[in-house]
Amino acid sequence: MQKLEELALKIRKIGKDDPRRVFHSLKVGLALTLVSIFYYVNPLFHGLGTSTMWAVLTVVVVMEYTVGGTLSKGLNRAFATLLAGALGLGANHLAALGGDKGEPILLGVFVFMLAAMATFSRFVPEMKARYDYGVTIFILTFSLVAVSSYREEELIKLAYRRLSTVAIGVTTCLCTSMFVFPVWAGEDLHMLVAANLDKLACFLEGMGVECFGEKMESGSLEGKSFLQSYKTVLNSKATEDSLANFARWEPGHGHFGFRHPWNLYLKIGAVTRHCACSIEALNTYISTLEQSHQTTTDLEFKQMVQAACAEMIKETSKALAELASSIRGMKWSSTAGKHLAMATEAANRVKALVPAKNSTLLDVLISATTASLVTELVRCINPIITAVEELSRLVEFKRPEHSRKAGAESPPHVVIAID
Amino acid sequence: MQKLEELALKIRKIGKDDPRRVFHSLKVGLALTLVSIFYYVNPLFHGLGTSTMWAVLTVVVVMEYTVGGTLSKGLNRAFATLLAGALGLGANHLAALGGDKGEPILLGVFVFMLAAMATFSRFVPEMKARYDYGVTIFILTFSLVAVSSYREEELIKLAYRRLSTVAIGVTTCLCTSMFVFPVWAGEDLHMLVAANLDKLACFLEGMGVECFGEKMESGSLEGKSFLQSYKTVLNSKATEDSLANFARWEPGHGHFGFRHPWNLYLKIGAVTRHCACSIEALNTYISTLEQSHQTTTDLEFKQMVQAACAEMIKETSKALAELASSIRGMKWSSTAGKHLAMATEAANRVKALVPAKNSTLLDVLISATTASLVTELVRCINPIITAVEELSRLVEFKRPEHSRKAGAESPPHVVIAID
Repeated sequence: MQKLEELALKIRKIGKDDPRRVFHSLKVGLALTLVSIFYYVNPLFHGLGTSTMWAVLTVVVVMEYTVGGTLSKGLNRAFATLLAGALGLGANHLAALGGDKGEPILLGVFVFMLAAMATFSRFVPEMKARYDYGVTIFILTFSLVAVSSYREEELIKLAYRRLSTVAIGVTTCLCTSMFVFPVWAGEDLHMLVAANLDKLACFLEGMGVECFGEKMESGSLEGKSFLQSYKTVLNSKATEDSLANFARWEPGHGHFGFRHPWNLYLKIGAVTRHCACSIEALNTYISTLEQSHQTTTDLEFKQMVQAACAEMIKETSKALAELASSIRGMKWSSTAGKHLAMATEAANRVKALVPAKNSTLLDVLISATTASLVTELVRCINPIITAVEELSRLVEFKRPEHSRKAGAESPPHVVIAID
Repeated sequence: MQKLEELALKIRKIGKDDPRRVFHSLKVGLALTLVSIFYYVNPLFHGLGTSTMWAVLTVVVVMEYTVGGTLSKGLNRAFATLLAGALGLGANHLAALGGDKGEPILLGVFVFMLAAMATFSRFVPEMKARYDYGVTIFILTFSLVAVSSYREEELIKLAYRRLSTVAIGVTTCLCTSMFVFPVWAGEDLHMLVAANLDKLACFLEGMGVECFGEKMESGSLEGKSFLQSYKTVLNSKATEDSLANFARWEPGHGHFGFRHPWNLYLKIGAVTRHCACSIEALNTYISTLEQSHQTTTDLEFKQMVQAACAEMIKETSKALAELASSIRGMKWSSTAGKHLAMATEAANRVKALVPAKNSTLLDVLISATTASLVTELVRCINPIITAVEELSRLVEFKRPEHSRKAGAESPPHVVIAID
């Protein structure tokens, strides 16, 4: 009972998080009901016969969440059916030359060869990205037409019916997808890229307050909820790629023209991820630093650097937020550049602090930073070792002889602490 | 002509890189040819009639590259067909109660409701990951049975035929997939995780030689081919997730039991990516350092730190390589832990260097590292600004009034240099 309640709450949350999901579900129902009218209405039914079920099938398979997805699948399906239908008819004519006994053998050879070649073409990355579904339908239709041709008398009629029912299905999908609460992949990509920049900005803002702000001593980042949001940015590549792929199929809509430079969004996404990586490094460093409870002797110097860091982080955060809102509103502003300039100024101020203190200090600083980064790297290995060790215990990796003899069930758990 | 040659070379390379791709293509051809025998042989054909084409369709759609993929799709298809077929028959009986006029309306309502609910269930992440294909087939079969029931007299016979042809198709796929040169998703995941660790190890080894080795002054990392390999690790999450998902469907094979802890591979993958992020931060820092041509005054200190860094990187690289080979050979060794201990020792040695030099230096170092990391972060913003700016130029974002009046076509390009 409690589990059912939890499930109900979860489902409600999914719908509330993005109401377009509910609309999409209703749209699929609508498209299916529309296409099944062909079945119920007598005059329509007699034209196409039982092949109307191909239209139902097409609707179920082609209907995607975004307009671009539906377009990509629908066009792939339509053109692949057309091409494979024509090729199938040709193969049928060729095979007929083989006589009664040769025909099935020839047909078998054709199907084998076409299927193998088409399948192999799916390993070409460009084909995979844009025409994967088309290739499936190509193999499907070709096999159906070629194989059926052995039994079916009126092959042309079959091919015509299949093509027209697929056309009906695709048209139904496209109309429902484009004209009833459309979800554009391009717009989603646009918003996603801006939202990712915002996530980084939001994290930096929080970090600036917690770690470099006035209450900097008390700030522990563990358990803060804003900590998690930027991590999703690191793994956003697959979503961005697929949205961009769909967006390319979409006609112009709203502010987005047909040849909108979607590739640029992928570029922004890549540099955003690079920035997220940099944030991850900084975040890891600060977390370990907090755990080591360093005591401070040269308070003045430390405070100067901290203040500069606080400003750099604040300005960087503002620059990112500015860029996000600039994308979102499609309105260029040079404010982001100004924020970056201010952050850069603060960075140079830190550099300038150093020679005043000590002339050889600069070398020390550079070496120290490198050493710190390498130390962080070393620290990364520990969780990897722990995870591999856990695996080795669970699936019983082979162990070196001596430890087995000693009856050691689990290897000594190594934890390295750098303090 | 030249383009054709290039294409031929490219296709050859794809086949050569992984010969299993060629086998897979031939396997698809084989499975299709096998299933079409049902069509050519008379006694077999008369049992199932033209619905044999469902078997052909099933083979084309279900056959995947890995055994797990085929199993997941095949079982999803089989069970969804069974469930939806039964529900469709039930819906048909219910609708028949509505009389001649009510029947199509009731059927329409059922199809609409089932389709909408099933589509919505695809937004639940757990459903999406494992049963997405099953839900599609569920909607498909239910609609087909419910809609056909209005015209078809022998509905039970239709449902039986559909189920048995799907079973024939799925069985053909599974046999071809599992017994002819099988490609196991689990094994691929196992190898991928090890290969990713190896990529990091290989990069670190190269970096250690180039940047911290004896010829450390000359080393420029730009344009080195080993530089690129670790970047693919950063984006490996999607591939790992999908392989792990397929691997869960696979029966035990080779060293992998049925309940092999595939989740642990995802965990290793996650910490590996974290490590890759740390490498990225280090790499970026070193690259910018090289460009700034820092002159050295305190050579002795620098060399001591460099030597320690070189050792840390060497040992880390060895630890990673050891872990990779430990996974690959499924043979636990504690050598990785020893390498890590040595790296840690080197890290502590760097720390020990500092107090000897200057008592307040430690504060300076920590502040300096933080400042360097933040500076790196600031530097990350520049490419983002450039990319957004490029976008704003290409799609003509709105510009602030004054720049439009001044006739400025492109905004002033801001490049911030931190030196």
